[in-house]
Parts: sequence; C-alpha cells; structure tokens
Amino acid sequence: MRAAKRRAATADRALSRGSAASRSRRAAAPELLERVRRGDQGAVSRALTMVTDEYSGYEAVTRAFFPYHGGSRTIGLCGSPGSGKSSLVNALVARVRKDAETVAVLAVDPSSAYTGGAFLGDRIRVQEHALDEGVFFRSLATRGMVGGLNETIFAAIHVLQAYEAAKGKRGFDWIFIETVGTGQDEVEIVDVVDTVVCVTAPYQGDEFQAMKAGTMEIADVFAVNKADLEEVDKAVANIRDAMSLGPDAEEGAWVVPVHAVSARTKKGVEELLGSIVDHGRHLEETGKLLERRKRQLRKELSLLISRLITRSTLDRVTERHIDLLLDKKSDPLTLGRKLIRGGA
Amino acid sequence: MRAAKRRAATADRALSRGSAASRSRRAAAPELLERVRRGDQGAVSRALTMVTDEYSGYEAVTRAFFPYHGGSRTIGLCGSPGSGKSSLVNALVARVRKDAETVAVLAVDPSSAYTGGAFLGDRIRVQEHALDEGVFFRSLATRGMVGGLNETIFAAIHVLQAYEAAKGKRGFDWIFIETVGTGQDEVEIVDVVDTVVCVTAPYQGDEFQAMKAGTMEIADVFAVNKADLEEVDKAVANIRDAMSLGPDAEEGAWVVPVHAVSARTKKGVEELLGSIVDHGRHLEETGKLLERRKRQLRKELSLLISRLITRSTLDRVTERHIDLLLDKKSDPLTLGRKLIRGGA
Repeated sequence: MRAAKRRAATADRALSRGSAASRSRRAAAPELLERVRRGDQGAVSRALTMVTDEYSGYEAVTRAFFPYHGGSRTIGLCGSPGSGKSSLVNALVARVRKDAETVAVLAVDPSSAYTGGAFLGDRIRVQEHALDEGVFFRSLATRGMVGGLNETIFAAIHVLQAYEAAKGKRGFDWIFIETVGTGQDEVEIVDVVDTVVCVTAPYQGDEFQAMKAGTMEIADVFAVNKADLEEVDKAVANIRDAMSLGPDAEEGAWVVPVHAVSARTKKGVEELLGSIVDHGRHLEETGKLLERRKRQLRKELSLLISRLITRSTLDRVTERHIDLLLDKKSDPLTLGRKLIRGGA
Repeated sequence: MRAAKRRAATADRALSRGSAASRSRRAAAPELLERVRRGDQGAVSRALTMVTDEYSGYEAVTRAFFPYHGGSRTIGLCGSPGSGKSSLVNALVARVRKDAETVAVLAVDPSSAYTGGAFLGDRIRVQEHALDEGVFFRSLATRGMVGGLNETIFAAIHVLQAYEAAKGKRGFDWIFIETVGTGQDEVEIVDVVDTVVCVTAPYQGDEFQAMKAGTMEIADVFAVNKADLEEVDKAVANIRDAMSLGPDAEEGAWVVPVHAVSARTKKGVEELLGSIVDHGRHLEETGKLLERRKRQLRKELSLLISRLITRSTLDRVTERHIDLLLDKKSDPLTLGRKLIRGGA
C-alpha cells in the first residue's frame, strides 16, 4: 500500500517536473486520444508534438488517431512569404467563427525555428482566441517539416480530426494549412488537402511566379491579397489571362475563381470563403472528393514508407562498405543494390 | 548501304532536332565521360543534367564518373538568403583564379525554379568567365534537389572531378557548393563537403540564428559578409562569443575563425580564403580529411540506398492498399511495414 502510494507520488512528481515534451512521452496513446476527444486543447498540443517530432511512443499515438481521418474539410494555403497568407488566414478564421464553424490552423513554417517569429505570431493569434475552444492555432516548425512536407503533416491532421471542437462536434469543420511558400511544400500541399488556395500579392509579380512554380496547376482558388493597393486589378487580370491559356475547360469542370481580397479591410474575404465552400460542393457532387481523399492516403502511405526505409537502411552500412568505395573497388549504385538484396 | 546512310541521316536529324536534354539521353556514358575528361564544358553540363535529373541512362553515367571522387577540395557555403553568399562566392572565385587555380560552383537553389533569378544570375556569372575553361558555374534547381540535398549532389561532384579543368589538370582544384539556406540542406551539407563556410550578414541577427539552426556546430569557418556596414564588428564579436561558449577546445583542435568580409569591396576575402586553405591543411595533417571523405561516401551510399528502396516499394502500392486505409481496415504504419517486408 505504501509502495503503491510512493510510486504514485513519484509519478506525480515526474509529471509536474517534466517539460511538456517529456510529459507527452509518458502519456499513453489511449489516454491522450481520450483527452483530445473530450476537447482538451493541451492534449491536442501534446499529441501534435509527439507525432510531428516523433518522440518515443509516437507510433502508438499516430495509429490511435489515424481512424479519425476524413472528418474535416482541409484547405491548403500556398503563396510566397510576403503574400500575406497569415493575415488572410486570420481573416478567414474570424469569418468562419461568425457562422459558429470550428477551425484549426497548422502553419508549416521552418523559418520559425530560426527567428522565433512564428512562435510569437502564434501567441498573438492564440491570445485573440484564447477562450474559444472552436479555434486552434499551431505552427509545426519541427525538424521533420523542414525542407518540404512529410508524413507527419497527415498525423497532425488526424489529431485535429479527433478533437471535440465544440460540444458534440467531432473534429474541426475546417483545417487550414499554411505552407511556408519557398519550395517543394508549395507543390506537395496538393496531395495533402481537399482545396488549394493560392495567395499572391500584386506587387510581387507573383502572377508570373505562380505559372513558373506550378502553383497555377494546383490552385483551386486564387486570392490576390492586399486589394487595398492599386495594382490589384492588373494582377487579377493577369492571373485570369494566364488561367485562360490553360487547356479548354470540359463540361462541368471547375473554373478557378480569382478573388481580390484585403486581409486588412476584409474586402473580398466573404467571396473567397464562398468559393472555397463552392469548391467543396463541386468535389462532392462530382465524386472528386473521394479521388482526392484517396490521393491523400496514397501520399501519406508513400511518405511513411520512405521514412521507415531510410531509417532501417542506414543501419546496414558498415565501415567495410565505405572502404570498398574509398578504394574505388565498388560504386554506390552497385553496392547499394547488393545491400538491398541483403548481400555485400 | 543506302539503309545505313538513311539511318545515319535520321540519327543526325534526331541529334540536331532534340533538346540538350534529349541529346544527353542518347550520349553513351563512356563517350560522355571521355568528352568531360577532355575538357568539354558542354559535356559537363549534359552529364550534370543526366545525373541530377535522373534521365534514362543516368545510372551508367553515375557509375562511370564515380571513380573520379576525391580529387577536389569541396567547400560548402551555408547562410540564409540575403546573407550575400553568391556575391561572396564570386569574390572567392575571382581570388582563386588569380592563383591560376580552377574552380567550379554548384548552386543548390530551388528558388530559381520560381523566379528564374538563379538562371539569370548564372548567365551573368557565366558570361564573366565565358572563355575561361578553369571556371564552371551551374545551378542545380532540379526536382531532386528541392527540399534538402540528395544523392545526386555527389554524382554532380564526381562529374566535376573528372573534368580537365586546365591543360593536364584532372578535376577542379575547388568545388564550391552554395546551399539555398532555408532548411535541411544547411545542416546536411556537412556530410557532403570537406569544409563548411557559414556566411552571415550583420543586420540579419544571424549570429543568433546560426546557433538555433545548428550551423554553429557545422561551421569550420565563419564569414560575416557586408563588412562595409557598421554593425559588422558587433556581429563578429557576437559570433566569437557564441563560439567560445562551446566545449573547450582540445589540444590541436581547429578553432573556427570568424572573418569580416565584403564581397563588394573584397575586404577580408583574402583572409577568408586563407582560413579555408588552413582548414584543408589541418584536415590533412590530423587525418580528419580521410574521416570526412569516409563520411561523405557513407552519406552518398545511404542516400542512394534509400532512394532505390523507396522507389521499388512505392511501385508496390496499389489501389487495394489505399482502399484498406480509406475503409480504416489498416493504418499507414502497419501497412507500410508490411509492404516493406514484401507482404500486404
């Protein structure tokens, strides 16, 4: 009896002493899931840290949350730094909350690991909605997410899909994912979300950039932000022109809307959200939603396989193999193939 | 006879009609290697395109060039965008050319895929040295290189190590590799090159950033660029302070030099190159060069193995597997493991 008490006290101390990260390592997956399901935002935070930073036990947590996939509308926001993505997301969040819809925002921003900027931004955002259990902000500035998206973005989404976002409401109605906007993640986001919104600002010359980077191909909706600037009409016209150069639209195909918006004055935000909703309806009515959901699962599985393989393979390389290469007695392709077959 | 002639004419037409890329697909590996060895910069370009974009036939090309590894001093330049890495590299190139040393620059810059900036930059750089066979510039803005480095960076280096950089000189004396400076490639470069030079600019607050991002741990030499600005002394002092907080230096250990440089006025460039040369000597004298070369080969082999396995596993993912996930009858971790084992 005394021993049990002592163990409990030790566990308590360990819990109160540990950092959020070390505590999360101790929380068992079923308990964490239960807390998230009951609407505990602290548990959501811990679960996100576990699945994206891959703390020990993350596999059990990842598995526990996976069955909740598919419950939210996921929206990806791409656009280069300076396009005003974050402000626009804030405006969209405020707008959907007016309709009592629930929303989570994941910002995939490696730069925050450098400057602490995103963290500060998060705190300001979080404070704005501090007492609102229907809103959740989080930036994923983890090792895993630097340099393109990886499979943990999906694990993070599943956590949010299990959360009781409002009384009796499983998962957030909306999950917005802000990409960093500098590289591969821009293009990869199309395999992660239902709807891609590309944000540009008129003075960035992004109407040109959009075409170059392939965002033209992945955009379901275009937003030209900072519509309080004069150049916006020209930018909107440029993008519409560029879009019309694409292949002829089939009967019933989705025509990408181009909106002038201002995160500052809120001009056009209503119409932008309208187009996002319309796109969701279009996906459902045409059966394309199922297609996209399958594509997302394929991407999740593929990224995970790559990760698992990379980890296990490196263990097989020994000093002797390196010496073979150093002495030019073999080359990496030949040796690599042998190692994969289990030889060498 | 006529048939043979016709075939030859057809081949000629195909050759003159095709793009550089499609022509490179037709060039056999031994011929391409021979041309590179003879000092044909066009052949270097084609070989680089083949090995980094993985055109068909790239395996033979990669194998053909591998034995040339180890012939050049490789220098990685990290630093965030805006630190002035490119200008500094240009200044270093001009400096080493004064000593009749040969130099190649590989810029790993995904942003160039967006703005065309790097391409333009390349052309300006290339024009400056257009008739100089001892200099070669190339940006690798390929699919493969976006979002972190991959094994093709090594293949690219081996191509440059086979090139006759000057009469009778096999491989460039120097290979500079400019990272994009936004994420993972910053840290990975340490496994690719002999010497890592971290570039920072005083107004970027990078002395702090350097510590956060782990560049402090990988830097062999620090360059505080834009030394024509006033804040430079403070930045140099900050970095030196931060470095001195690290573990106590062992006897004979390398003490990371911190240089104030100006790519514009060339101030400090001489001293920076001096430190790079010193570091190379230090590596040789302490036997650490061999260690680093082995680490590079290990990284090359590991990255290649991951790529090979990942490719073959992804081929095994079928519609049925996706349906299992969609119906929540399995989860990606469980299914992924099965697929890797060859089951499922």
